[in-house]
Amino acid sequence: MAQVGIVMGSDSDMPIMAKAADILDQLGISYEMRIISAHREPDVFFDYAKSAEERGCKVIIAGAGKAAHLPGMCAALFPMPVIGIPMKTSDLGGVDSLYSIVQMPSGIPVATVAINGGANAGILAAKILATSDPQLLSRLKKYAEDLKNQVVEKDRRLQESGYKAY
Amino acid sequence: MAQVGIVMGSDSDMPIMAKAADILDQLGISYEMRIISAHREPDVFFDYAKSAEERGCKVIIAGAGKAAHLPGMCAALFPMPVIGIPMKTSDLGGVDSLYSIVQMPSGIPVATVAINGGANAGILAAKILATSDPQLLSRLKKYAEDLKNQVVEKDRRLQESGYKAY
Amino acid sequence: MAQVGIVMGSDSDMPIMAKAADILDQLGISYEMRIISAHREPDVFFDYAKSAEERGCKVIIAGAGKAAHLPGMCAALFPMPVIGIPMKTSDLGGVDSLYSIVQMPSGIPVATVAINGGANAGILAAKILATSDPQLLSRLKKYAEDLKNQVVEKDRRLQESGYKAY
Amino acid sequence: MAQVGIVMGSDSDMPIMAKAADILDQLGISYEMRIISAHREPDVFFDYAKSAEERGCKVIIAGAGKAAHLPGMCAALFPMPVIGIPMKTSDLGGVDSLYSIVQMPSGIPVATVAINGGANAGILAAKILATSDPQLLSRLKKYAEDLKNQVVEKDRRLQESGYKAY
Amino acid sequence: MAQVGIVMGSDSDMPIMAKAADILDQLGISYEMRIISAHREPDVFFDYAKSAEERGCKVIIAGAGKAAHLPGMCAALFPMPVIGIPMKTSDLGGVDSLYSIVQMPSGIPVATVAINGGANAGILAAKILATSDPQLLSRLKKYAEDLKNQVVEKDRRLQESGYKAY
Amino acid sequence: MAQVGIVMGSDSDMPIMAKAADILDQLGISYEMRIISAHREPDVFFDYAKSAEERGCKVIIAGAGKAAHLPGMCAALFPMPVIGIPMKTSDLGGVDSLYSIVQMPSGIPVATVAINGGANAGILAAKILATSDPQLLSRLKKYAEDLKNQVVEKDRRLQESGYKAY
Amino acid sequence: MAQVGIVMGSDSDMPIMAKAADILDQLGISYEMRIISAHREPDVFFDYAKSAEERGCKVIIAGAGKAAHLPGMCAALFPMPVIGIPMKTSDLGGVDSLYSIVQMPSGIPVATVAINGGANAGILAAKILATSDPQLLSRLKKYAEDLKNQVVEKDRRLQESGYKAY
Amino acid sequence: MAQVGIVMGSDSDMPIMAKAADILDQLGISYEMRIISAHREPDVFFDYAKSAEERGCKVIIAGAGKAAHLPGMCAALFPMPVIGIPMKTSDLGGVDSLYSIVQMPSGIPVATVAINGGANAGILAAKILATSDPQLLSRLKKYAEDLKNQVVEKDRRLQESGYKAY
Repeated sequence: MAQVGIVMGSDSDMPIMAKAADILDQLGISYEMRIISAHREPDVFFDYAKSAEERGCKVIIAGAGKAAHLPGMCAALFPMPVIGIPMKTSDLGGVDSLYSIVQMPSGIPVATVAINGGANAGILAAKILATSDPQLLSRLKKYAEDLKNQVVEKDRRLQESGYKAY
Repeated sequence: MAQVGIVMGSDSDMPIMAKAADILDQLGISYEMRIISAHREPDVFFDYAKSAEERGCKVIIAGAGKAAHLPGMCAALFPMPVIGIPMKTSDLGGVDSLYSIVQMPSGIPVATVAINGGANAGILAAKILATSDPQLLSRLKKYAEDLKNQVVEKDRRLQESGYKAY
Repeated sequence: MAQVGIVMGSDSDMPIMAKAADILDQLGISYEMRIISAHREPDVFFDYAKSAEERGCKVIIAGAGKAAHLPGMCAALFPMPVIGIPMKTSDLGGVDSLYSIVQMPSGIPVATVAINGGANAGILAAKILATSDPQLLSRLKKYAEDLKNQVVEKDRRLQESGYKAY
Repeated sequence: MAQVGIVMGSDSDMPIMAKAADILDQLGISYEMRIISAHREPDVFFDYAKSAEERGCKVIIAGAGKAAHLPGMCAALFPMPVIGIPMKTSDLGGVDSLYSIVQMPSGIPVATVAINGGANAGILAAKILATSDPQLLSRLKKYAEDLKNQVVEKDRRLQESGYKAY
Repeated sequence: MAQVGIVMGSDSDMPIMAKAADILDQLGISYEMRIISAHREPDVFFDYAKSAEERGCKVIIAGAGKAAHLPGMCAALFPMPVIGIPMKTSDLGGVDSLYSIVQMPSGIPVATVAINGGANAGILAAKILATSDPQLLSRLKKYAEDLKNQVVEKDRRLQESGYKAY
Repeated sequence: MAQVGIVMGSDSDMPIMAKAADILDQLGISYEMRIISAHREPDVFFDYAKSAEERGCKVIIAGAGKAAHLPGMCAALFPMPVIGIPMKTSDLGGVDSLYSIVQMPSGIPVATVAINGGANAGILAAKILATSDPQLLSRLKKYAEDLKNQVVEKDRRLQESGYKAY
Repeated sequence: MAQVGIVMGSDSDMPIMAKAADILDQLGISYEMRIISAHREPDVFFDYAKSAEERGCKVIIAGAGKAAHLPGMCAALFPMPVIGIPMKTSDLGGVDSLYSIVQMPSGIPVATVAINGGANAGILAAKILATSDPQLLSRLKKYAEDLKNQVVEKDRRLQESGYKAY
Repeated sequence: MAQVGIVMGSDSDMPIMAKAADILDQLGISYEMRIISAHREPDVFFDYAKSAEERGCKVIIAGAGKAAHLPGMCAALFPMPVIGIPMKTSDLGGVDSLYSIVQMPSGIPVATVAINGGANAGILAAKILATSDPQLLSRLKKYAEDLKNQVVEKDRRLQESGYKAY
């Protein structure tokens, strides 16, 4: 039983979606990952999104580019949080994906992260689950501590070597 | 039996959608008009779009604003042309609606018209039907002639009165 | 003890933030509402965001406009989900607020909703809490049903009266 | 006698326009393809667009970039549907082409597809012709089924191998 | 015989086009003013632009909004300078008009002025004619002197009264 | 002798520029205010900017809209800091002014503040002067304290009355 | 004595400015070409622009990127037409250059061509000079004829070989 | 004791920040350089910004990309000028960074320079310090003179060799 559903409309989105999966792996969160196109197979998509709750999903992470309808249509069908990842596009840089995901009408929110923000989608899913899972919350705090230490270490190295040698 | 389906997600889009209906009325084209939200009632929407062909629709005109998924989801479900009208929005001017409608992925086109282009959606639907209806094509040519004459008349008035009196 | 913290940097954001509070009221979710500026009183803000977990908050809803730092700085200090509402701005329409909130760097997501999306922020907070609260989930499903029925009713009225009388 | 006219202003647009032709080939639709510049040879262009109906064209697909006037001027001269393809541009990403094509004034619609949407232009032309050609409609449904199966196959492969091996 | 042709596609552009005419009046330059739509009456438009040289025009000022093709199509047909005025639009602010006019392909320039820049179009036309008309050049220098003096006078008033009384 | 020069190209910018002057008044900083157009009277402008150092100016605040050249040309002529205020414009919202001011080439910086950011320009000028004036720095800290207290007071009122009564 | 002045602020603009010079060479128009920075050497720039009329210049072509002030400041100092070329920029694509050049205030027009439109600037300069030079006008018509023939030849080749072999 | 603090949130910003440091080195201004993330280590950041005044800093240069909060949060904590450098971003070109830095609310200005404007940030810091340091002002004038001479030299070379050999 997966706590998080990860879904993308095209396998070209895999490098970004894999970052979300990597985070969930690191934080010990179970997930399922699917390639389902809301446009090319709307019936498969409908069944997927409608049955996600039964399968135990608490959060769906949906990534899509251009006229990105996958996250918003998930949010119309799944009653718990949907996280949307706008994919960078080669012509408009991803502002098309961003507007198509974030500008949802009243009643049907999508929790939107940055363009190509795969890792942040994974972390946001974990934060959502952590609202009722103190152990996951501890692991998230540890993860944040690690991020902090990476910066501290870089600064230490800069102070040591100077910026020209950095 | 309606040749054209006109569908909007919210009755706030009615003033623009009504312009499409007005054109169809003028050109003697039958249509049905529905308020159906792809986000708030996805099952109703699905049934509507999937059964439109059976009801005799040859073209669907769908208007939507912001993260405008209605036209694209129609195009995923209905096998003939879908015309999308991007609604002007109060914050982004409608560029969000435009990108959400026009930037469809390969395989699922939406025939997009201008922001708030209700009349043009009606004319485009008529042009599509006119590809197999010579009488409608004649009425469309007459309509274009009328548009031309309006400009000719305005220019005549300008030549007569000068621009200060215009 | 409040489950949700609602915070804004300026009382000019109140009309939008109040929509989030209204939703929480309707769904029976406790909340606290504060006016705290990350820029004008960073120390007050720091204390607020750092102590929110202790006060029992599971989610923070933060609204801000222009160079909108409040949501992102909340996300740096609070370990559970932060929902960001980009405020419409009079010059750039809110695209400045949107970019300042959604484009967070890796590690620190903000769950961004639409420009001026106060109601959606409230609903998203409820959906997050509903991942561990079946009764709230039921209330959310009922709320979605009500939204659906409003559209159904509008469509019924349209079918009855026609679009000219609508 | 060609059912569809494909026209571009410059042979630099050929890679995108060829995608439209490929689709028409696959679906058994006859077409003519021309390089005609509305700006450099307006008289040739005028004759082309005015005589397209006589040559049997039911749809024109016009691609253009930057200040893209070709589709709109076709729509001023040809009485049936004109499909516009906005070309990606190296400086503005194609938003200039898009606005120049989609924002047509009332009376003269251009059915606009996505930036660089050559394949979708071909599919849209087929959908238009399919409104009066049941056999073409069947071929289009088969084409859509194939697109669906490609996604299903990708998803099957993902379930088998996992995302790391994908 | 008119030295300058002023042409607009719709009489809604008149308030801006009138500013160009006012400048030409002030500087003693003859002009003709026409309402001709490139989209609604392409044949009238063609005749107009092709015959402008014969009628004695040295410059054409063309204003248009949205997918603004009028200036560029003038430039394709008239061998001397065409000045384009992008009209402000209610949804996109005129950026659509601007891109449609300024981003002309190589070989067919349009001398583009600011959005709603009617007066500047008139002045630019005068500057073009002044390249071979020393008396007009003198009048233009006098006009520039007057503009300067207006600012000098405002500054004098500010120094006298202070900014609070200004 | 004025420490700060405030200059605008048009008296339509006065309401915004006056906010900068108000701040300087409050903080006890001397200034001169001028209306000088870099475009209409480049020689007056040149003299003004070149002689500002002699007159004792340490900072220039320049406001301009649209193709806003005044701040950048000040920065080319005056050796100490120039603060640029991009004016909101009716068509493009001020993004034209912003780009024209902030995107200065290497070697000639303009310290740019927000669109219509008159008060912030005044505060920034004060902060610059405060780098060598401890008493002014104290007044600035007091000013910041006042801003903080205004927010604290608003929050207190909200806690007292609740958001519905607010 | 040069009829056209070509000026750029940086030699990085040379590849684009050279296209303008090439056109002038082809059309037999004399020109001078200078690298002068309005920002780095405003006094040199001032002398250049003020004396251009005396040197016989009838038109100035000025190219600049980012906060592009060179064309507008030329237009403030030189009484005849100034043509502005907005340079493509690596971050904003040249929309910054475009706005900085085209959005000139009333009274001081710059005849703006497309982003990186070096050739078009040369052609526009020639068209301006052709308003009083019938032989140059003939050469321009010949040039346009050549452009047309290039397209005709490409189309002929396409008809011969088909698009796959093209 | 450092006069200028240079701070960045990530070492990926180093190439741009190094340009600021290079300028300060050339002009003999002392500085400290730190890698501190406002989002990943808000407490370290707070201490840094609050203690900068004590350490002798008169100016802080802060660079950041995307939802760039570092400069604005510095400005909330440090009482003297903060210079913000918006980093170019791979998806939106840096317009996200720019808006996040320049659109600061009233009371908390950030002196914003161009996207990737590292050198200009260094020069602006020097200009600020030069308001009370006549020797530094002389060095800055010398630096500007050198910039001018580089352009003069390039122009001399162009006049000598012609543009084709350039």
